[in-house]
Amino acid sequence: MTSGSIDLRSDTVTRPAPGMVAAMSAADVGDDVYGEDPAANALEERVAGLLGHEAGLFTVTGSLANVLGVRAWVAPGQELLCEARAHVVRAELGAHAALHGVTTRTWSHPRGRADREAIRELMSPGAGPYLVSTAAIGVENTHNFAGGTVHPVADMAALRDLVQGTGIRLHLDGARLWNAQVATGVSAREYAEHFDTVSVCLSKGLGAPIGSVLVGPADVIAEARQWRKRLGGGWRQAGVLAAAGWYALDHRVDRLADDHTNARLIADLIHEAAGSVVDPESVETNIVLLHVGRQAERFVARARAQGVLVASVAPGVVRLITHLDVSAADARKAGETLAAVARDAGA
Amino acid sequence: MTSGSIDLRSDTVTRPAPGMVAAMSAADVGDDVYGEDPAANALEERVAGLLGHEAGLFTVTGSLANVLGVRAWVAPGQELLCEARAHVVRAELGAHAALHGVTTRTWSHPRGRADREAIRELMSPGAGPYLVSTAAIGVENTHNFAGGTVHPVADMAALRDLVQGTGIRLHLDGARLWNAQVATGVSAREYAEHFDTVSVCLSKGLGAPIGSVLVGPADVIAEARQWRKRLGGGWRQAGVLAAAGWYALDHRVDRLADDHTNARLIADLIHEAAGSVVDPESVETNIVLLHVGRQAERFVARARAQGVLVASVAPGVVRLITHLDVSAADARKAGETLAAVARDAGA
Amino acid sequence: MTSGSIDLRSDTVTRPAPGMVAAMSAADVGDDVYGEDPAANALEERVAGLLGHEAGLFTVTGSLANVLGVRAWVAPGQELLCEARAHVVRAELGAHAALHGVTTRTWSHPRGRADREAIRELMSPGAGPYLVSTAAIGVENTHNFAGGTVHPVADMAALRDLVQGTGIRLHLDGARLWNAQVATGVSAREYAEHFDTVSVCLSKGLGAPIGSVLVGPADVIAEARQWRKRLGGGWRQAGVLAAAGWYALDHRVDRLADDHTNARLIADLIHEAAGSVVDPESVETNIVLLHVGRQAERFVARARAQGVLVASVAPGVVRLITHLDVSAADARKAGETLAAVARDAGA
Amino acid sequence: MTSGSIDLRSDTVTRPAPGMVAAMSAADVGDDVYGEDPAANALEERVAGLLGHEAGLFTVTGSLANVLGVRAWVAPGQELLCEARAHVVRAELGAHAALHGVTTRTWSHPRGRADREAIRELMSPGAGPYLVSTAAIGVENTHNFAGGTVHPVADMAALRDLVQGTGIRLHLDGARLWNAQVATGVSAREYAEHFDTVSVCLSKGLGAPIGSVLVGPADVIAEARQWRKRLGGGWRQAGVLAAAGWYALDHRVDRLADDHTNARLIADLIHEAAGSVVDPESVETNIVLLHVGRQAERFVARARAQGVLVASVAPGVVRLITHLDVSAADARKAGETLAAVARDAGA
Repeated sequence: MTSGSIDLRSDTVTRPAPGMVAAMSAADVGDDVYGEDPAANALEERVAGLLGHEAGLFTVTGSLANVLGVRAWVAPGQELLCEARAHVVRAELGAHAALHGVTTRTWSHPRGRADREAIRELMSPGAGPYLVSTAAIGVENTHNFAGGTVHPVADMAALRDLVQGTGIRLHLDGARLWNAQVATGVSAREYAEHFDTVSVCLSKGLGAPIGSVLVGPADVIAEARQWRKRLGGGWRQAGVLAAAGWYALDHRVDRLADDHTNARLIADLIHEAAGSVVDPESVETNIVLLHVGRQAERFVARARAQGVLVASVAPGVVRLITHLDVSAADARKAGETLAAVARDAGA
Repeated sequence: MTSGSIDLRSDTVTRPAPGMVAAMSAADVGDDVYGEDPAANALEERVAGLLGHEAGLFTVTGSLANVLGVRAWVAPGQELLCEARAHVVRAELGAHAALHGVTTRTWSHPRGRADREAIRELMSPGAGPYLVSTAAIGVENTHNFAGGTVHPVADMAALRDLVQGTGIRLHLDGARLWNAQVATGVSAREYAEHFDTVSVCLSKGLGAPIGSVLVGPADVIAEARQWRKRLGGGWRQAGVLAAAGWYALDHRVDRLADDHTNARLIADLIHEAAGSVVDPESVETNIVLLHVGRQAERFVARARAQGVLVASVAPGVVRLITHLDVSAADARKAGETLAAVARDAGA
Repeated sequence: MTSGSIDLRSDTVTRPAPGMVAAMSAADVGDDVYGEDPAANALEERVAGLLGHEAGLFTVTGSLANVLGVRAWVAPGQELLCEARAHVVRAELGAHAALHGVTTRTWSHPRGRADREAIRELMSPGAGPYLVSTAAIGVENTHNFAGGTVHPVADMAALRDLVQGTGIRLHLDGARLWNAQVATGVSAREYAEHFDTVSVCLSKGLGAPIGSVLVGPADVIAEARQWRKRLGGGWRQAGVLAAAGWYALDHRVDRLADDHTNARLIADLIHEAAGSVVDPESVETNIVLLHVGRQAERFVARARAQGVLVASVAPGVVRLITHLDVSAADARKAGETLAAVARDAGA
Repeated sequence: MTSGSIDLRSDTVTRPAPGMVAAMSAADVGDDVYGEDPAANALEERVAGLLGHEAGLFTVTGSLANVLGVRAWVAPGQELLCEARAHVVRAELGAHAALHGVTTRTWSHPRGRADREAIRELMSPGAGPYLVSTAAIGVENTHNFAGGTVHPVADMAALRDLVQGTGIRLHLDGARLWNAQVATGVSAREYAEHFDTVSVCLSKGLGAPIGSVLVGPADVIAEARQWRKRLGGGWRQAGVLAAAGWYALDHRVDRLADDHTNARLIADLIHEAAGSVVDPESVETNIVLLHVGRQAERFVARARAQGVLVASVAPGVVRLITHLDVSAADARKAGETLAAVARDAGA
């Protein structure tokens, strides 16, 4: 990172604050491969409880939590359906296919939604010995590449209804489910109860240095624990990190509202300067997508030159994400800088 | 099969005729694992030549040819894009993911077309170390589950233009490419020249008992030959079957026009009786899709009871395929039978 | 192949004789993917019955039959134990690992035997969540790379005893099980009854152009049928080849005794000329291993120059295999030729 | 863990001491997925330098480091050779096969050594299109399941000579390479220079809570970094843990001599009481194997009841490992306890 910059590339870039470090230092740890790390066990139990599921598994990344969750439902050669820009199919390097033989089909929705008609058209449960059977559907909430968009909880209930009796399972990639909760007032648990497995992240918005949790039925989590080891993720004194996650759950959920306010502020400032680049109404949480035309790389470079780090995530699309290391003042400054870059680009 | 029935479930059900059997009996064979089967070698060379490619590989199925072709271009964790009902992603049991770690994203098009805008939106070549890179795009011509639809050759040229310079490769699943040739007058070669690898089938419409051919660059085919063995498809005296394929190329391509006429006849007869079930204009080759509402399984059972075998391929969709064991008289009889079933179903 | 040569590289190189071709021409065929090929179904039933198993599956190669059999018992990350030169681990291009994630450990035995002490030392059934669990043991009979050696049937019974109650399954690669039967008088069925799945080949010694059969429990075979399709081996009018297999079972089993006699004759002739190269007592069936020192490639080239084709299969080891296209006169001639090559090499 | 027990199950069970916690608290961190974590980068550079390799990659476990190292050299369907009790083939849950299609063959050696004759017999580099090619050989030093045995460095040089010019690569699983260094005086670097990739662990004997490092050529490490992410191991603020690893390298290497002394003390005490159970001369580092006959589980339970935790690692074999949380007094007490258990068991 360029020192002194305002880093809006992702909410993964935050650094542990003193309170969190103190919690880590005080952690009661053990060997988690043997299931003997008190802090990791406590965190797994807490997150499972929060989300209304039986059991939890602490993992080094959200990608690992997703890969383990999907694997639980989808056998080699079976299929996962998801939106075309979902993290599971775009940002996990094809792991589901490469490691577990999961094939995928996708629908496209401008806001990343679980489009009921598209899913109904695609889904093919129990398709017999000649055709691919749909075994699971993945939903991402909030949806990163769609711009931090929130799924209406009613859509989740409708999706659950749609698959009722088909044998199709639902996996929720809830890396930013806390943002959905804060943005809507619908609790993470209300969202999670419509799904068979759910992953949530303690890094990203909550600011722990490392760690996600997968929750689901106890037998699924037990098997996921073994696969976690097979994938090289069977860590030892994980409690050092679990303590940071625990602290984050205590102190960092409600404050996500500030990130949302800051994201909206930045969008407003850019919109005032260059209206077509961003619609402030589209900013639902802590992610802002800027539609900068063909010059996305140039936009990113200019912003960087002026001390604001953002990312190009698709042709013509620049993404910025607010997080706990971005203050309201930082947000205003970043918004003004990006507004100027956008105005110049448009000129 | 029910004896005495007219079997329209697929064009894979044909039986070798005497002339073909005679050709098989006279074949000059050897051990194809050692590359020493004269008939197999000759067939591979002939098909490669027909399609304007360097080399060919004789495979036991079209699925195997597709799996080997796609594998050549897509490394584990990279992605293949294709239409959502394409054979490679619907009817090969997830083999590309299960065996070779290929991840997939899909677009949907009512006629199975290579939708340029949808592809442009999805494609992500050379996406770097964090995102999935698009390595290949698959096209199926004719497109089975879209109803035997033919791709305009101009679309193929446009697709080639679209990927120019991106590193993305194109694979053509040409299981029924001969039907496209006969239906349009555009030669198989003209279609094939836009693709990096092409599979064609000698069974299906051409009526050989077993066998497909993959064509492409010589080095790709050499590596595919090794992978064919790894997948358990390294057959020995393959010339017995290659001779049937050779015979089929000699005698069975032009007559596909009869299958197309018969398919249209059946569609016309059904349309007269139950207009909404099928639009005869949609019948481009030897495949007819009937939209029978919620009672597809019942429709199939009733037709079977009256001596016509058809298949349910999606909710509400019944498919029938004409082939060389279906005469014009058979087609008329089947059309009348299905018209009656459709009329009754609608009443 | 060099025309006019005596080809002893493998028993896979035989060509169908007129009687077999006639049987193929007369076959009653159908679409085997739909389970409707009468000749294939009959063959599967016959072989299952011959080997005392519930059901059979006709496959394009012995490798495919082995891959499907082992997959039935060994989940991804579990282990198969076998002798270090077994076909499954040496000559199937790592398919078990590459396609199905099967890990392997091996013991070494000079005659390829199922060494009870070595297996006891290695086997680790139900090893829990941290260690690899042994799920199956593979045995090859006769053992190709050990020189066509036959397993005493008592060893098979002892192996069955060893795994009793452990959950470990036994797979028999019986590509040349017919040779074991003819050499020992112990029926293929007596061997097969100690195993959970068995593959046998109809090509190799029996001379069908293409085809093997996997037998085992009905549910295992049903699932293997689906995986056969996933691996691209779901052929259509397979009856053409099944008829050849049927003919081979009728006419080609007992005559394997001639191949054994011929192999021994060749070994005797070489032994007389160059004693250390081969011990005739080691020749149990139709395979002869020659220990030619460091010049295996040169030996192969010299033999080829004099019209005898043999193969180098390991450093310093040349293999020759007799089969139905090698007459007693051919054997004598080949033996004399190879004796001369061996004598010269030793000089 | 039973509170108050002496835990000898593994050296993975240690807990971070105050000095290490202080180092973690002071770490300068960033987002390691973007390569921006200063502490992680520094650690990778330091370990690569220590081992005389170009570049390093910090991983969550030693299993992950091994899986990434072996994958660099062995393509799907190619083979890794290793000793039959090596960690890579026994204790990584078949990951190499399950995730990357690596097939394995093994030799057996009582001390886990790189048996030159056995390897020469097995190795099959560049084996062509029909046979499995040996692509890499793995060595584990010290060898865990053989009892913490050390490889003579001369064996490593001989192994390097053996593969010279064959294309076969060498991977060193150096999870306990520091123990080998301390036991022999041969530096880790001298060992490492014979290998193409090396993994070392900072947890186990060195006592960091989490973390290993893979070292090798820069291009291999760059690709491994991408595969680390694909496997779900792309952590974010890894510097928190890297700081612990750095501290461990500063303070914990030389003190491994104490662990070795303690292990020998325990072995001596048991030997005095029950001679056949352990040969003290076999204890080379911090691991002791007890040969307790058929009652391994009972032995473990009795020891546990008396406050000493040990592990059953094979039929009849109990393993104990000393580490930094085991003082000389603990070792004496554990030795006396186990001596009593062994004596009783033998009576």
